[in-house]
Amino acid sequence: MNTLTKTGLDMFNLISELYPICRSITGNGVRDTLTILQKHIPLITHEVPTGTKVFDWTVPKEWNIQDAYVKNSKGEKIIDFRKNTLHVLNYSVPVRKSVSLDELKAHLFTVPEYPEWIPYRTSYYQENWGFCISYHQLINLGEDEYEVVIDSSLEDGYLTYGEYYIKGKRAEEILISCHTCHPSLCNDNLSGIVLAVFLAKHLTSMSLDYSYRFLFVPGTIGSITWLCLNEPYVSRIKHGLVAACLGDSGRFTYKRSRRGNAEIDRVVMNVLKNSGNAYETIDFIPYGYDERQYCSPEFNLPVGCLMRTPYGHYPQYHTSADNLEFVQPKSLTDSLSLYLSIFNVLENNKTYSNRNPKCEPQLGRRGLYQMTGGQKDKKLKELAMLWVLNLSDGSNTLLDISDRSGLEFTLIHEAADMLLKHDLLQECPH
Amino acid sequence: MNTLTKTGLDMFNLISELYPICRSITGNGVRDTLTILQKHIPLITHEVPTGTKVFDWTVPKEWNIQDAYVKNSKGEKIIDFRKNTLHVLNYSVPVRKSVSLDELKAHLFTVPEYPEWIPYRTSYYQENWGFCISYHQLINLGEDEYEVVIDSSLEDGYLTYGEYYIKGKRAEEILISCHTCHPSLCNDNLSGIVLAVFLAKHLTSMSLDYSYRFLFVPGTIGSITWLCLNEPYVSRIKHGLVAACLGDSGRFTYKRSRRGNAEIDRVVMNVLKNSGNAYETIDFIPYGYDERQYCSPEFNLPVGCLMRTPYGHYPQYHTSADNLEFVQPKSLTDSLSLYLSIFNVLENNKTYSNRNPKCEPQLGRRGLYQMTGGQKDKKLKELAMLWVLNLSDGSNTLLDISDRSGLEFTLIHEAADMLLKHDLLQECPH
Amino acid sequence: MNTLTKTGLDMFNLISELYPICRSITGNGVRDTLTILQKHIPLITHEVPTGTKVFDWTVPKEWNIQDAYVKNSKGEKIIDFRKNTLHVLNYSVPVRKSVSLDELKAHLFTVPEYPEWIPYRTSYYQENWGFCISYHQLINLGEDEYEVVIDSSLEDGYLTYGEYYIKGKRAEEILISCHTCHPSLCNDNLSGIVLAVFLAKHLTSMSLDYSYRFLFVPGTIGSITWLCLNEPYVSRIKHGLVAACLGDSGRFTYKRSRRGNAEIDRVVMNVLKNSGNAYETIDFIPYGYDERQYCSPEFNLPVGCLMRTPYGHYPQYHTSADNLEFVQPKSLTDSLSLYLSIFNVLENNKTYSNRNPKCEPQLGRRGLYQMTGGQKDKKLKELAMLWVLNLSDGSNTLLDISDRSGLEFTLIHEAADMLLKHDLLQECPH
Repeated sequence: MNTLTKTGLDMFNLISELYPICRSITGNGVRDTLTILQKHIPLITHEVPTGTKVFDWTVPKEWNIQDAYVKNSKGEKIIDFRKNTLHVLNYSVPVRKSVSLDELKAHLFTVPEYPEWIPYRTSYYQENWGFCISYHQLINLGEDEYEVVIDSSLEDGYLTYGEYYIKGKRAEEILISCHTCHPSLCNDNLSGIVLAVFLAKHLTSMSLDYSYRFLFVPGTIGSITWLCLNEPYVSRIKHGLVAACLGDSGRFTYKRSRRGNAEIDRVVMNVLKNSGNAYETIDFIPYGYDERQYCSPEFNLPVGCLMRTPYGHYPQYHTSADNLEFVQPKSLTDSLSLYLSIFNVLENNKTYSNRNPKCEPQLGRRGLYQMTGGQKDKKLKELAMLWVLNLSDGSNTLLDISDRSGLEFTLIHEAADMLLKHDLLQECPH
Repeated sequence: MNTLTKTGLDMFNLISELYPICRSITGNGVRDTLTILQKHIPLITHEVPTGTKVFDWTVPKEWNIQDAYVKNSKGEKIIDFRKNTLHVLNYSVPVRKSVSLDELKAHLFTVPEYPEWIPYRTSYYQENWGFCISYHQLINLGEDEYEVVIDSSLEDGYLTYGEYYIKGKRAEEILISCHTCHPSLCNDNLSGIVLAVFLAKHLTSMSLDYSYRFLFVPGTIGSITWLCLNEPYVSRIKHGLVAACLGDSGRFTYKRSRRGNAEIDRVVMNVLKNSGNAYETIDFIPYGYDERQYCSPEFNLPVGCLMRTPYGHYPQYHTSADNLEFVQPKSLTDSLSLYLSIFNVLENNKTYSNRNPKCEPQLGRRGLYQMTGGQKDKKLKELAMLWVLNLSDGSNTLLDISDRSGLEFTLIHEAADMLLKHDLLQECPH
Repeated sequence: MNTLTKTGLDMFNLISELYPICRSITGNGVRDTLTILQKHIPLITHEVPTGTKVFDWTVPKEWNIQDAYVKNSKGEKIIDFRKNTLHVLNYSVPVRKSVSLDELKAHLFTVPEYPEWIPYRTSYYQENWGFCISYHQLINLGEDEYEVVIDSSLEDGYLTYGEYYIKGKRAEEILISCHTCHPSLCNDNLSGIVLAVFLAKHLTSMSLDYSYRFLFVPGTIGSITWLCLNEPYVSRIKHGLVAACLGDSGRFTYKRSRRGNAEIDRVVMNVLKNSGNAYETIDFIPYGYDERQYCSPEFNLPVGCLMRTPYGHYPQYHTSADNLEFVQPKSLTDSLSLYLSIFNVLENNKTYSNRNPKCEPQLGRRGLYQMTGGQKDKKLKELAMLWVLNLSDGSNTLLDISDRSGLEFTLIHEAADMLLKHDLLQECPH
């Protein structure tokens, strides 16, 4: 078994370990999740009290749940939260009463297009209770007296999030953000959480120019809270990616930042283009994951969202079918490799100036060029060196050179290294 | 009968009323036309004396015509101006003489491609006389002595044009210009004249930000005259459209202003794109209607030309087949609606700034956002609000937001109104 | 026989005269070539001593060759330089010895894909000796004792290049550069040399605004040498073309300058587009002919490369099949015409301002416009005048007007001349 295959299985196993936990935007589900992640990376947890004002929002009460079920008059549990966390409307207030079929139905949610699947529903900011079941189960419910129990609590407490920082040579940061608020859903977003963890593990062992910040936050309220508490430091973020939906077998989809042509946007598109695989890029829209907040008008951070199949574009999205069968070890490792390739470009995207800018330098006498002329096929490495020499006038980054030449960044980067070694280039200051 | 259908019939009836009149660039035909229009809108008429210098041009002698015919030796009127004003070469000098077939033929104009149609020909600036007939009639003319009578006059007088001004809150103007010099031709340009009249009627009753100026001018010499006499005020024109060929059943064609990307150009393209109907846009060329003058290099006004089938692109153009059968009430009302939609965008194309530019404001607690999360389909109204909030950083107009989001302007405009009402936006000064 | 046919034959005959000469980057082959060219144009030759430092390079030793052959043990010449100059590895050091088949094979070059063709190979900067033969001959060589003779010399001497200057009214120059270092190869690059000579002959007899500089230089080292020796004057070059591969029957290919949108790039693309023939344009890449040096980052001259089928894109490239059968008189004259059309645009690409910038001037009273209005088809000449008047606001060149109108440059140029004659335009200073 090679390293990549092993990594894929490790990622999948971590998803499996996190899958049964009932997460929400607050509560012990998030704490338990972060505790498991701490076995992999020493992330720090933050607890922000209920009632804290964060821009236009307020940190809500903390929600916790022990159990929830519906019993029929025979005492049989016909809906059981312990079988699937999706069965309960997330943020349901406590309830314990007998109800008729009609009253029960007013609190049931289904997805009729897929009659066997349980939908995922939430009611964070309007107090309510409810159950999510399959449409098939709904239509088979008969008149009866049902016992409804939701053993939850909604009380002053905390919003919990995790943060992991890797210090590089520069104070400028690359942000990786994922949302931790979804209960038993694998692709959205255990795949993003696990990808962030494995990225962090991998980068920790490397010598890095940029510093890296990983955020494990509940969607919307979590990123808003982080931005509010860290407003003075936000300008350190030079590039960022929101990681979500990275375990399915669909092709990669990159949603550009609000800026549209930020360096992160250009890097991701360069890497995807040179990957040889099909992919899709879409323009920023102010709907989706936490890029909504990072790209709000005053922050306008260069943060895109790199997914496989986007939210809402696969039928399993936000249903019980987004389960362990829907995510694949191979997809997870390919996603990890793609993120690492992107960070590799960002780390090495320097600007050089050619020390012999008048005509080409004589590569041949330095052993950098084939000696017998007239052959039809020139090697790609030589071409990459010629491109780097030609465009290194102080105004082009290696990414610019890769884009203009159509040659892969790694080839351009190697050429630049070779030329540097022969004193033919010098690095320009940032 | 609904309002739109009634409006279409009213427009068509006005065309029918104007159709028999022999208009030209000067003379009583134009005066009679403007008098009829004054029954609908209180337009002002201007009389500019023959000989007035207008830039490189001179207002020509005034042309009037009572009658014109050709009789054969049997005394039969074989060509009769009273049957169709197109029969006489427009601006023909008076003539009364007997001619042979050969001499007559030297003064006859036909359109051989369409042997039953009478062409429309003019000779404004070179004194000449002539008749326009069907090619079929031409080839059936036999040797004979023909009596030619053109009872016209070409004398010092006036160039007549009409002007109608609607004062809005702002001094900045929107110009609507149409040409009034064509005799019995319906699409080119009675349709444009009638459209301008009904637009004017409609706008008069509205509360308007912009002021509106309607010009009813003879082609070329009329717009040149107006520009010359009003040169100090021309800079008030912020947007403009030349209205012509708006009654046929072809799709809309927008010819951009010389600037190519003026606000009027972007607005028309936005409205056409969102109309769901086929349309065409073409780049400015210095040939066509009076946009030639408005877009001359020193004025370079943001004036486009919004037509259905463009000049010269339908076979009936400038022939007797451009008659009452060629224009349709439905086409006229659709044209009117389109113009009104465009002015609606211009009136409402404001720039706002988001009062909560750091992260999204919490729409939910203001009742602006659905309360049960997790549902797959988000409503368009919410998306429009998110777009307005995200892009309202003081640098984007609502048109910019409509263009970037791909959402209709009206939806964006409604979202902005809703956000304003909740104090989430503030308007930026012009 | 018309002039063009005669010119084509003259060009072809000059190629035939130059074909047998064994050129290289230095030596008598280049001198003999330039001497023949001097029968057509009074070009000046420069001799630059071996050892001269030219930027990062050094002028190499001069190479000359009298004879070269391989004999088998029967004394039969099985490879004979006198039959084809390609047989010897260009820049082979002298050798005279007996070798086994194995040792001989280590010095033989072939092109197996085309088993009957002899390849062209060089070894300028690494001392070596060798022979180029057909693959068919290679595989039929038997075990034997072979006598190898290369009667060459590699000694201190000179690098020779030719230069021809035509003085125009302005000191600003147009550069035409071709490489003179290839031995018996017709398309690459006797066609380029001969095109430059005939262009020079043609332009010498004309009244020119620009000055023209023709360079006949060995590839790479020649242009580097010229740039180094003429560095203070290089900024006079306002436009330039590298001429190569102009005799084959393929369509034209234009490789843009490094700038990508320099005037020369726009002119060539305008002329090619209006030619009505298929053509191709490609972006600059830092591999190819001497545009590599002219477009090195600090010079960054607006120099493109105008070819027919590009280097490496025809199988005959750099083989014995690039012979007299591969180039055609008709192709040569068409290439000449294209270059002349391009220079015609550059010479006449002036900027004018309309003296009547407010509305159109009255073309009719000046006899510049048809007098009977209403006709459907307007003549192209009138349209060209309207375009020139409309866009001549001091910011558009005639090329800009041709590009925007889609009308041929010559039509636009004639319209401008006509308007100038009627005092409707004035020329703007450079």
